[in-house]
Amino acid sequence: MADEHRNESGDDSGDKSAGAPDPEATLPELDDRQLRVLRQIGRAWGKVCDRPGRWRAALPVDPAPDGGVFLAELTPNRFGRVVRLNGRPPPLRVTGAGEAAPSWWGRAGQQVRRVLIGPPLAASGLAVERMRKLIALPVLSADALSSVAYGPEAMLTVLVAAGAAGLGYAPWISAVIAFLMLAVAVSYRQTMRAYPHGGGSYIVASDNLGPTAGLLAAAGLATDYVLTVAVSVSSGVAAMTSAVPRLAGDSVLIGVAVIVVLLAGNLRGVRQAGAVFAIPTYAFLVAMAVLIGVGLTQDSGHGFHAQAPPPGAPVAGVSVLLILRAFSSGATAMTGIEATSNAIPSFRPVEWRNARTTLTWMAALLIVMFVGTIVLVHVDGVVPRPNETVLSQLARTHLGSGWPYIGVQAATTAVLLLAANTAYNDFPRLLYLLAKDSYAPRPFLRIGDRLSFSNGIVALSVLAGAIFVGFGGRTEALIPLYAVGVFLAFTMSQAGMVVHWWRHRDQHWRKSLVFNAVGGALSAIVFVTAGITKFLEGAWLAIVVVTVLIAGAVAVHRHYLHAERALALHPDSVELPHHAFTPAPAAGSPDREHRAQPGEPDREREETPVEIRHLTIVPLSGLDLAGLRALAYAASLRQPVLALHISPTEHEAERFRCYWRTWGDHLPLQVIVSQHRAITGPIVHYIQLLQRQRSDLTVTVIVPELVATRWWQHFLHNRTATHLRRLLRPIPRTVVTSVPFHLPRR
Amino acid sequence: MADEHRNESGDDSGDKSAGAPDPEATLPELDDRQLRVLRQIGRAWGKVCDRPGRWRAALPVDPAPDGGVFLAELTPNRFGRVVRLNGRPPPLRVTGAGEAAPSWWGRAGQQVRRVLIGPPLAASGLAVERMRKLIALPVLSADALSSVAYGPEAMLTVLVAAGAAGLGYAPWISAVIAFLMLAVAVSYRQTMRAYPHGGGSYIVASDNLGPTAGLLAAAGLATDYVLTVAVSVSSGVAAMTSAVPRLAGDSVLIGVAVIVVLLAGNLRGVRQAGAVFAIPTYAFLVAMAVLIGVGLTQDSGHGFHAQAPPPGAPVAGVSVLLILRAFSSGATAMTGIEATSNAIPSFRPVEWRNARTTLTWMAALLIVMFVGTIVLVHVDGVVPRPNETVLSQLARTHLGSGWPYIGVQAATTAVLLLAANTAYNDFPRLLYLLAKDSYAPRPFLRIGDRLSFSNGIVALSVLAGAIFVGFGGRTEALIPLYAVGVFLAFTMSQAGMVVHWWRHRDQHWRKSLVFNAVGGALSAIVFVTAGITKFLEGAWLAIVVVTVLIAGAVAVHRHYLHAERALALHPDSVELPHHAFTPAPAAGSPDREHRAQPGEPDREREETPVEIRHLTIVPLSGLDLAGLRALAYAASLRQPVLALHISPTEHEAERFRCYWRTWGDHLPLQVIVSQHRAITGPIVHYIQLLQRQRSDLTVTVIVPELVATRWWQHFLHNRTATHLRRLLRPIPRTVVTSVPFHLPRR
Repeated sequence: MADEHRNESGDDSGDKSAGAPDPEATLPELDDRQLRVLRQIGRAWGKVCDRPGRWRAALPVDPAPDGGVFLAELTPNRFGRVVRLNGRPPPLRVTGAGEAAPSWWGRAGQQVRRVLIGPPLAASGLAVERMRKLIALPVLSADALSSVAYGPEAMLTVLVAAGAAGLGYAPWISAVIAFLMLAVAVSYRQTMRAYPHGGGSYIVASDNLGPTAGLLAAAGLATDYVLTVAVSVSSGVAAMTSAVPRLAGDSVLIGVAVIVVLLAGNLRGVRQAGAVFAIPTYAFLVAMAVLIGVGLTQDSGHGFHAQAPPPGAPVAGVSVLLILRAFSSGATAMTGIEATSNAIPSFRPVEWRNARTTLTWMAALLIVMFVGTIVLVHVDGVVPRPNETVLSQLARTHLGSGWPYIGVQAATTAVLLLAANTAYNDFPRLLYLLAKDSYAPRPFLRIGDRLSFSNGIVALSVLAGAIFVGFGGRTEALIPLYAVGVFLAFTMSQAGMVVHWWRHRDQHWRKSLVFNAVGGALSAIVFVTAGITKFLEGAWLAIVVVTVLIAGAVAVHRHYLHAERALALHPDSVELPHHAFTPAPAAGSPDREHRAQPGEPDREREETPVEIRHLTIVPLSGLDLAGLRALAYAASLRQPVLALHISPTEHEAERFRCYWRTWGDHLPLQVIVSQHRAITGPIVHYIQLLQRQRSDLTVTVIVPELVATRWWQHFLHNRTATHLRRLLRPIPRTVVTSVPFHLPRR
Repeated sequence: MADEHRNESGDDSGDKSAGAPDPEATLPELDDRQLRVLRQIGRAWGKVCDRPGRWRAALPVDPAPDGGVFLAELTPNRFGRVVRLNGRPPPLRVTGAGEAAPSWWGRAGQQVRRVLIGPPLAASGLAVERMRKLIALPVLSADALSSVAYGPEAMLTVLVAAGAAGLGYAPWISAVIAFLMLAVAVSYRQTMRAYPHGGGSYIVASDNLGPTAGLLAAAGLATDYVLTVAVSVSSGVAAMTSAVPRLAGDSVLIGVAVIVVLLAGNLRGVRQAGAVFAIPTYAFLVAMAVLIGVGLTQDSGHGFHAQAPPPGAPVAGVSVLLILRAFSSGATAMTGIEATSNAIPSFRPVEWRNARTTLTWMAALLIVMFVGTIVLVHVDGVVPRPNETVLSQLARTHLGSGWPYIGVQAATTAVLLLAANTAYNDFPRLLYLLAKDSYAPRPFLRIGDRLSFSNGIVALSVLAGAIFVGFGGRTEALIPLYAVGVFLAFTMSQAGMVVHWWRHRDQHWRKSLVFNAVGGALSAIVFVTAGITKFLEGAWLAIVVVTVLIAGAVAVHRHYLHAERALALHPDSVELPHHAFTPAPAAGSPDREHRAQPGEPDREREETPVEIRHLTIVPLSGLDLAGLRALAYAASLRQPVLALHISPTEHEAERFRCYWRTWGDHLPLQVIVSQHRAITGPIVHYIQLLQRQRSDLTVTVIVPELVATRWWQHFLHNRTATHLRRLLRPIPRTVVTSVPFHLPRR
């Protein structure tokens, strides 16, 4: 499956291809209207902030100290380097040490991570080398070509249920599939012409059919990628255990280990390093050529007399349903065929022409290998067996059990693992594109310091691992889920192309439209066939997952739009203040008359500093140094302060007041008697009670918090600050601050 | 096991017995020295806080509004009631509504909880009724008497390995155990005289032998309580499945269900409701009386001719080791014998005399039942079988399979579950006592609103459930772990008593000392025997657990002492300020000359408000409403403010500065270019950089935080505030504040 969106690595071509990841554009763009509002807000601040220069003068430190070597000083290491730039105000440039985690544990973790995953990379490393066709072919087609390892077998597994009669249909079904491959390949050739900078299914579908079609394509692709990993790994492991049957008992374990290696390798940022990645594919091509060549030669020796398959009682008759199911299983042999169309920018110029040539080669190779395999299967009378793959049986029949056989199996395993690896490039990019359009959670936008989309890579590993383990690592159980997603994406992409040609009508548009329409119609037929005939066997799960993904994407999108609208600078957010903002606190004369009107909504408006009326509340459990520090911090902010103590009984309350008087009663104190020993609940309600008196009150709760030196000591103290933060979060105009008291190390 | 520390419920007797829980004393006591320091600190504040009355005048709201009905107004329900008291300043008294959780989910959870666990109770409900001896006997002795259900069987299970020869030793070993019971009972009679208000093993051992011995006893008791639950439940389930063999397959499930019911019931606060709890014990006594009576009568009919046990190949010879192992297994029949000595305050006066009488009865009944069972077993030639308990076999032999048999099994099950329930009273109290002495985490001090120690109850359920499931619910697998803890606690308690008598030398002290010495020595022998002979079978685990518990308790204790010393008001914490504290901010003239001396330690001293030099840092990811609100909040505190933006490239940095200028550049801004896209790391290091310029700087980081309306939306936004809080926690003089921006509901 498919290097959907591989094009994104091609930014250095100078073309901005659609959906290219730009890890640098983290700052949301402000449009003209927002800039106007920003200016308005600024003017409102300007009216109330008299003498703005005073703020800079008031800074107790130099924000950009001279020399610029401070960060490196903190934890000196060879990465430590701070570069100062000219211009006012100078930005600090931080590399290495400034990014080091501040705690010992954090740093140790970073060291381990650095060994496993490698040191951080600068964003400029995102560029990708241009590939010659001879390199591009193997790199991009591993996924498609490796499908030969499981596609024919999947078809035969269905047919064998009807015995010899069923297997007799194999050549005819294969012919249809071969035609389908041709049609889809021709169809994608059209896409390349229209999207010379790369056209993934998601982009083509959303561009031409709108966001819903795009989401359908994306959901199809997402399930496709997850299954590509699961199916490729399971069939790679099957190729391995066919050669070494001793390992068969541990196949799930081996598969999980492979997924873990893929995870680690991709977190480290395995680039498609041309030559190295070409080896497995070429090895596989050679192996298949030898196998098919030797096989046909040997079979021609006894005149291509088809051997009867070994006797096995048919458990079902031949029916249209059976044939259709075999067809949709066999069609998984063409998964990954769309890869080149997404990866156009990785080719040397003229990119799209080279890509098109490569696609043609690939399709030809795929068809030859697929047909060759089916012919051998038919002639040799091979049927799927639980412990040995069809390919392994063919190889054993024609090449014996020596090194040539081992070579075929090793090449098959290698190309399948490479195919799994391509999904690791594509799935995170798809999530990136979705997140960029606000259809997936924004954390998927984050590019790790190894320039890999770590969150997407982890998500893919978890999902593929779960599917793989859940289905016991059996390829035949996974196949029914597979076809649905792939052909959904194919259909959407080709349908999008039809609309594209209809709209653009450039040279040859009629021919292209027809090709795409045929490809799309065929894909749609496979999609519907797969969905219906394999519904009970697993397709239902794929359909459910696609539906859930789309619903999730829509919900995420709605939320982001909502948040964006709520956060955007809009004219309502400006309110002219009534009086000038003086740096001195107008602490006196509380305006007790300003009570909340009943039913007045709890509006939170953007405020200029002068509009904020503070009340600082300090909950105290006792008068110890931590409590006094919190009080001092609160008082030093020079806003009204109210200390709060919660007591279980009047007696205890009186004792606290006694201590308070001993201290000198410097600040107002309120004691609350909480009969049932609840602490946080009464505090929250008390704050709400006060806010009902004045709806414009911003309440800052300053909680003393003991900070222990070891992690387990954390559990030995109450966590009032954490609880209060959680409880107060939903309440407007409340801010929780914890003032730490650090226990000294012993 | 045993109502260790049941005495704590007897506070209403007017006597303060050692270790009585006082849920009201939550406020740490300040000693004279601390009060003196507090006064000093207060004077220091007084010098800098000119016009302290102004703080009260500045309050924008009335902290204790008239009428006192506000809390009830918030969420009116029948619990809502706020009582105002006289005196200045008036404490608010909060009941019901004021404790309600402020969120919808929280309230729904509280409702569910109220249905399952019941409404909150006031602390005055802690008193416990006084029990007549006829009620006290069954209530307190369920644990001890029920041990007859598994003790003899455990002994036989060991002996049967040596075949008939081994079983022949059963009567002799039983005689020794019966003597041991007598000795321990007599020994505890002495303890009662010395601790007329209740003497649990932990208290007796720490009083007389010091804290280490106390911890040994406590650790022994803790494992004992956990195993009491596991063993009683497993044996209760075995009694049930013996009668209804169909259930045997689900015994683990049934056991877990029983533990869950015990958990819920105890969280609800099941009190020892005299009469009801007496029924199972009396039923068991009657059942055993009938069984032994009928059995002996029938056996006497054929002249007590011991039947040969059914043929079974001996797998081991009779050896000293085997005999000792059988002895230490059989000794589990006396677990729970110490219960009455802790529960003295629950008796009617004269408490200790009544308790002593009860103990005597209980020991007599225990010995009679134990010996009777062994005689029947011996005469009937019964041997342990995997699917039926020995008691069930005896009952079937003598009473048939009808209602009498069912009655015996039902009574056995009931008394065993009651025994498990007693551990639910004792384990949390033991943890409470340990926590009060700072040997266990303070959360175990917390009395839930149902007056139960919920944390201890949950801990016991989790531990007992884990042990029960881990050992597959098989009683015989749990027994080897059991004896170690019980007899460790017995030994420590009796040894403590020996020291007690030696020190006090009151009337009869010699006799008591001898009795306790004999009891202690015997217990020690059993402890050592059990530890050695069963080491490989499970005793090692008990020993490891005891060791870990003690190490943990010591570590917890050291931490609390350390924290207490660090938090206590000490003379060093007072520092006279240099200049008067004026409510107006002395924002100007930053003292840039005051740089940190290299190597100067990061001391955090108690500060009066004037000593705190603020710098407020506002990290901004963009200029949206949330960011502007955070800026407004920061500026309104009228302390020096520095806005901070982290950019991946110079280009983006320039774009942000452009927006900033559009806004009006009202506040100082620093942009940091972070090449590797790290956000929080650079912020933390930048703050440390600034703090190196001025060591007395208190940095408040004010982070805009988006608050979503649904839980899943939480994952859609970055969590900078949370990350910063975690990273900045260990750094002195940094405070993190998040200013919430609430997304409106759609």
